[in-house]
Amino acid sequence: MSAPGFVPRLDAADPACRPHLARLAGRAGEVDPAVERTVREIVEAVRAEGDAALIRFTRELDGVDLEREGLWIEEARLEQAASRLDAATRAALEEAASRIRAFHEGQMARLGLGGAPTPPEALPEGIYVDSRTTPLARVGCYVPGGTAAYPSSVLMNLLPARVAGVEELVVAMPTPRGEVSDAALAAMRLAGVRRVLRAGGAQAVAALAYGTGSVPRVDKIVGPGNIYVATAKRLLFGEVDIDMVAGPSEILVVADDTARPDFVAADLLSQAEHDPLASAVLLTPSRRLADAVEAELARQLARLPRRDIAARSLAAFGALVVTRDLDEAVELANALAPEHCELAVADPAALAPRIRNAGALFLGHWATEALGDYCAGPSHVLPTGGTARFFSPLSVETFLKRTSLIACSPEGARRLAPTAIRLAEVEGLEGHAEAVRLRQRALEAGG
Amino acid sequence: MSAPGFVPRLDAADPACRPHLARLAGRAGEVDPAVERTVREIVEAVRAEGDAALIRFTRELDGVDLEREGLWIEEARLEQAASRLDAATRAALEEAASRIRAFHEGQMARLGLGGAPTPPEALPEGIYVDSRTTPLARVGCYVPGGTAAYPSSVLMNLLPARVAGVEELVVAMPTPRGEVSDAALAAMRLAGVRRVLRAGGAQAVAALAYGTGSVPRVDKIVGPGNIYVATAKRLLFGEVDIDMVAGPSEILVVADDTARPDFVAADLLSQAEHDPLASAVLLTPSRRLADAVEAELARQLARLPRRDIAARSLAAFGALVVTRDLDEAVELANALAPEHCELAVADPAALAPRIRNAGALFLGHWATEALGDYCAGPSHVLPTGGTARFFSPLSVETFLKRTSLIACSPEGARRLAPTAIRLAEVEGLEGHAEAVRLRQRALEAGG
Repeated sequence: MSAPGFVPRLDAADPACRPHLARLAGRAGEVDPAVERTVREIVEAVRAEGDAALIRFTRELDGVDLEREGLWIEEARLEQAASRLDAATRAALEEAASRIRAFHEGQMARLGLGGAPTPPEALPEGIYVDSRTTPLARVGCYVPGGTAAYPSSVLMNLLPARVAGVEELVVAMPTPRGEVSDAALAAMRLAGVRRVLRAGGAQAVAALAYGTGSVPRVDKIVGPGNIYVATAKRLLFGEVDIDMVAGPSEILVVADDTARPDFVAADLLSQAEHDPLASAVLLTPSRRLADAVEAELARQLARLPRRDIAARSLAAFGALVVTRDLDEAVELANALAPEHCELAVADPAALAPRIRNAGALFLGHWATEALGDYCAGPSHVLPTGGTARFFSPLSVETFLKRTSLIACSPEGARRLAPTAIRLAEVEGLEGHAEAVRLRQRALEAGG
Repeated sequence: MSAPGFVPRLDAADPACRPHLARLAGRAGEVDPAVERTVREIVEAVRAEGDAALIRFTRELDGVDLEREGLWIEEARLEQAASRLDAATRAALEEAASRIRAFHEGQMARLGLGGAPTPPEALPEGIYVDSRTTPLARVGCYVPGGTAAYPSSVLMNLLPARVAGVEELVVAMPTPRGEVSDAALAAMRLAGVRRVLRAGGAQAVAALAYGTGSVPRVDKIVGPGNIYVATAKRLLFGEVDIDMVAGPSEILVVADDTARPDFVAADLLSQAEHDPLASAVLLTPSRRLADAVEAELARQLARLPRRDIAARSLAAFGALVVTRDLDEAVELANALAPEHCELAVADPAALAPRIRNAGALFLGHWATEALGDYCAGPSHVLPTGGTARFFSPLSVETFLKRTSLIACSPEGARRLAPTAIRLAEVEGLEGHAEAVRLRQRALEAGG
């Protein structure tokens, strides 16, 4: 490894390498018992007392008096925020919104809503089975307060819900010391939000999950938040659906000799600047590239406004790893299952199918992650901490649910009866068998 | 209400009715702190010690010595179990498997796997965005031991995974006192399972979630289990994906005057016989039907082998409710969001779209729930306890995940750059803006 305080250099053959990388992939699902106790108390209070608890905790924790300010940010305030934006920002938000909408409309067209029951009599076997897809009725979206109220995040969470057909979107956003981001409010307006709760933390999540006198109960809660928000979402999972347990952000770049060191370094830094806990890793069989990226990192870091955050992130959760070959890089990438994976190689389309586990794949030298973060189209809400092994990006499917449909004619029931009766007998569930036999007997009696 | 010990009769206009029904819909997500502490200790021990803890807890809790018996049930034992089945049971399992497979193959054909990256140069705007769908690599399925090792459940959990393309299925099944169900083993064989762990409880769930020296780590754990299993799954959610937090089973029958009281009563009993905690509810505007169903319930209950269980279930979680009209029945059904909902009405196809929240809808007088439980095709693993508001039935989608794909040509990057740069500036993320500007400058320099 190189000097402490800068980015670790590793060789994939080095025994220290895999444990270092494994630590990066295992950052999901960690639990802080003290936070959990606090959150449980807040959640229980909101369940029992409703608005009173929501108002009390918001006064104590945010210093905001909801009884005076009102629970909801006025719709006029959203419009005002939109009208205050400069032209360039407004155009950028609109362009991003239009691309995000278009991507998710494409997804929706492929998936479709549906499952319209056909009369079973019309069916050849007399049996109709289908799966009906419908949007969730009401969705809550958490938006962190202050400078973390990223307008891009508002669009990336809410537009897919909108495209999926969710009727009602409810945003919860804390306004500590009354601070509100105009850009975030404008983004909410673009996404068609009409209800913005002036509250955050575990108390806002609990209010959305259980409903209170003033806050309607939602079916699902999405959106990023601090450890209290994340813990509340985790504890309330089952009572309400949640998007995912989000951890710190990650980028993994798989690069060969065709990669430009300045591009790779800039992309690693664009992740590292998020958060001291963010992770930025390069995997490359080219030692020459790793050397050049290291030099570029030092050069670019010096000019970066958020260099303190980025330097801490690189030192703790970064790595420049030289692998035996691209195959080994692919293998390590799949074990890490990163949130973002850039393929900065000569033939990214050939490599992409071999990366099984990643939230989003960026193909080639020009698809820098920042384009995906803001405006390429797919949501930037992606599985972190190795959970890309089994979780998916936020999409229209996040806001859809299915219902199985089963119908049969008398003839269909007759056809299925012997199988159902036999299996019910094997399982010792005579009541199940009898419900089917009754139909059999009715059919025999009726001819 | 009628005499205690039998099924409650309610009028929807009665103020006691909605609280009674609300209690039925709120049975998900309840937590027992003592169980949670025990499970947390077991899970931590398996994480820290691996096989040693798995072996120790299985000896203590199941009285099975895995070191002597072996961790895995031999494949020959699965084949033996299949060959021991009588012809009728074998035929029934095969018929059920074939219908379950066909339904999920239909789903798979509609969804498709895919997202094959096209070279971005070939695209008009130079921007390629897509969503790739791939199966999970390895899935664990919990099968309860002894008489609860229902072969139908094995098929309903594992065949959708198989059809989705999951490469490796690992079953965990406790064998207390060495007891194994031949029918369950035969069903596993039909589903293509080769690895069956001879262990259950929280220790088996933890072994699947973390992996041990002998047990491979899985990406998702599905399948029903007791409170320890359910709690372990809930605690490990995020470390691994899980299917859902399953509660006691439920049926809701919406019926009009065209319904046959004997059919309705039999269907209610087929749910009530599962478990003293199961719920069976009738909603009908016809007082005449409610009276007749009550009489039929008494008559059929007397003959039911599992009448003690069914009677306790009906008394505690059953209800015969007379509503003002079908509209009120629909409204109450949506508030309950039942696991199974039968529409025993003259025109079920017209009513079905109005029932928004249900795991499965059974249309008409002939589609008794037992046909869906065993062989109609859709999985019988459905959301319970009101979670049909937001959860979906187990299906091929349960075993698929998505990865976003983003590619662009130099021209595509140029097109997206101004929007991304502006939004990065608004959010104060200069590193993001710089990663994009670097590409802009390279394109200007290169012409």
